[in-house]
Amino acid sequence: MDIAPTAAPDLRSQFSTLQTPCLLLDEARMMRNAARMAAATARLGVGLRLHVKTAKSIEVVRRVAGPPPAPLTVSTLEEAEHFAAAGYRDIVYAVGIAPNKLERVLALRRLGTALTVILDSVEAAAAVAEASRIAGEPIPALIEIDCDGQRAGIVPTDGERIRAVAAALADGGRVAGVLTHCGGSYGSRSEAELRAWAQRERDAVVAAAEMLRAAGHGIETVSLGSTPSLLFAEDLTGVTEARAGVHVFMDLVMAGLSVCALDDIAISVLASVVSAQPERGRYLVDAGWTALSRDRGTADQRVDQGLGLVCDVDGRPYGDVIVTGANQEHGIIALREGSEAELPVLKVGDLVRVLPNHACATAAQHGHYNVVRGDDIVRWDRFGGW
Amino acid sequence: MDIAPTAAPDLRSQFSTLQTPCLLLDEARMMRNAARMAAATARLGVGLRLHVKTAKSIEVVRRVAGPPPAPLTVSTLEEAEHFAAAGYRDIVYAVGIAPNKLERVLALRRLGTALTVILDSVEAAAAVAEASRIAGEPIPALIEIDCDGQRAGIVPTDGERIRAVAAALADGGRVAGVLTHCGGSYGSRSEAELRAWAQRERDAVVAAAEMLRAAGHGIETVSLGSTPSLLFAEDLTGVTEARAGVHVFMDLVMAGLSVCALDDIAISVLASVVSAQPERGRYLVDAGWTALSRDRGTADQRVDQGLGLVCDVDGRPYGDVIVTGANQEHGIIALREGSEAELPVLKVGDLVRVLPNHACATAAQHGHYNVVRGDDIVRWDRFGGW
Repeated sequence: MDIAPTAAPDLRSQFSTLQTPCLLLDEARMMRNAARMAAATARLGVGLRLHVKTAKSIEVVRRVAGPPPAPLTVSTLEEAEHFAAAGYRDIVYAVGIAPNKLERVLALRRLGTALTVILDSVEAAAAVAEASRIAGEPIPALIEIDCDGQRAGIVPTDGERIRAVAAALADGGRVAGVLTHCGGSYGSRSEAELRAWAQRERDAVVAAAEMLRAAGHGIETVSLGSTPSLLFAEDLTGVTEARAGVHVFMDLVMAGLSVCALDDIAISVLASVVSAQPERGRYLVDAGWTALSRDRGTADQRVDQGLGLVCDVDGRPYGDVIVTGANQEHGIIALREGSEAELPVLKVGDLVRVLPNHACATAAQHGHYNVVRGDDIVRWDRFGGW
Repeated sequence: MDIAPTAAPDLRSQFSTLQTPCLLLDEARMMRNAARMAAATARLGVGLRLHVKTAKSIEVVRRVAGPPPAPLTVSTLEEAEHFAAAGYRDIVYAVGIAPNKLERVLALRRLGTALTVILDSVEAAAAVAEASRIAGEPIPALIEIDCDGQRAGIVPTDGERIRAVAAALADGGRVAGVLTHCGGSYGSRSEAELRAWAQRERDAVVAAAEMLRAAGHGIETVSLGSTPSLLFAEDLTGVTEARAGVHVFMDLVMAGLSVCALDDIAISVLASVVSAQPERGRYLVDAGWTALSRDRGTADQRVDQGLGLVCDVDGRPYGDVIVTGANQEHGIIALREGSEAELPVLKVGDLVRVLPNHACATAAQHGHYNVVRGDDIVRWDRFGGW
């Protein structure tokens, strides 16, 4: 494997002053990943509405999406409130709206944030319409379309239900458009499958938009996106905006899909060896599931990376060394099953870095990034909660 | 299933004002669980050094362990610092010490906290001894004993290594005793196996203590514990203190081990239905892995509870309804595979509660508890990080 080291000697001595476990972010890799997605969406002729659920950091988003008024996607109202407070006023909340959240939606809108919600049922549409009538202001909503059978949304062939939801919404609220997300692309096994998912995602959401236009609704927004489908899409005619977030950091799942290389992965968990058991073929580090998450996103891929791929302190993968198990504050590192490689020689106190299966899940376990920027390390806060 | 409802009508209307997803804590169940463990350790003649890694909340610990000077166990120095600030000054940090953490250990000790570390290697013992000599104060350490082959520690039969570690430690630091944790008990399939693990845990740590005494070390502390082994132990002769934390909340893993009943589980995640797909046999709720964790601790038990067992708003399990999958902010609820039960009828906006596989992991995803206390709900903060 040909991995560029990302830690200069000066940096290594800085690492030794960090408390482990902690989250490292390589700013140069992040900016390279952001530029790649920007080029892809520019080539496809769509704007990018960055999904901030991966980073949950004003500092990251300012660098990747630019300053306000860059449009954003959020997965929680907590994110909407944080980014609205930082001046971002064009936000899509891309998880089906629960009626108990409409008061907060209205509060954000009253403070000047153009917040759009999503929904896929007559019940939710009626709740949004009613809240809109009471507030005296139509809340805009996108109707969620199901392009892969995996999560929420209405299948694009169910015109009756799509029209019924739009009609219920239009009775006070505003039918702003349609939205879909192709989580199915994560299960691809080849570039051809990735391209096919991208096509299916586009076709589903554009068909739904056409259907609603034919029913007399003025559809402004036709929104889709996932990191794999966007990076492999060939034609997004009819789409007005794309959403992605994982591409900012990339991860082992994306590398397993050939969507990125290992040395595109911008975050890692720095950990200390706390118990050396080479005679049993393993070491214990102080990064357990609290630091790594329990995401097993590579379990069904060609290469199962356990709970993460282990690298030396410079960020170079040892090869077949992965996190094979974890408790709350312990990670077990060992050779992957069947490997004929040699276990590296480590001693208590040595530092290692662990690349994450799923960037969103691992980052979510941490309160801040330790940003590696040249020879320097700076701290950027992140937040969680709802 | 005979489950006592825990939500009175008044409470239900209070739930509807909470923002979902959020963490509920039933105070009465928690206090009942705490009393059960207190009775068990009293019967066994050992003191309980509550493990605070499950709760990470001053409010919980004050009620369960009592006010200072109650002795505590922590899994991070962040916990040690929080609880020391709240007046708890007798703390064991029960994860193998990494040398880069010794400055913080010394800072806590200088401020009057009797903080004890653990270790299992000559390297760590030498680092503790050296830091002690430089500080002019012996840091007390427990030597970690491996009773189940699952994690850190020295096997009790390896007298040579145990004595070498103690000798390195004694050269400046202080050999305070021995400690073990029987994580293996979580794999038990019967009460007989639970009792056998408890015996094995006790025998391992007591044997190590005897060995060190024979080598001339004054051993004060002989510490062991896990919730299952403590609740099934029959004799802890030679043990000076017990550690447990999960018993405070209990969870589906403990219920699957017959260590508790479902209606002993004191925490649950309150969630709203955001997409109803009964025609596909599922609903989506707004509790994804950020709210539930991805812990799959019941996967290898007789009953696989997916990512959690779904209950109605009053806390009554529907039966075979579990969380079958999750994304960041979406949980899929459906009947477990092979079930012949009927899927309950739910609509968008309905509230459900999800019992966790692993209390530590689910609680770790939240910043506070919504404590159900009679007809009232109060907020207790919790913390994370290192």
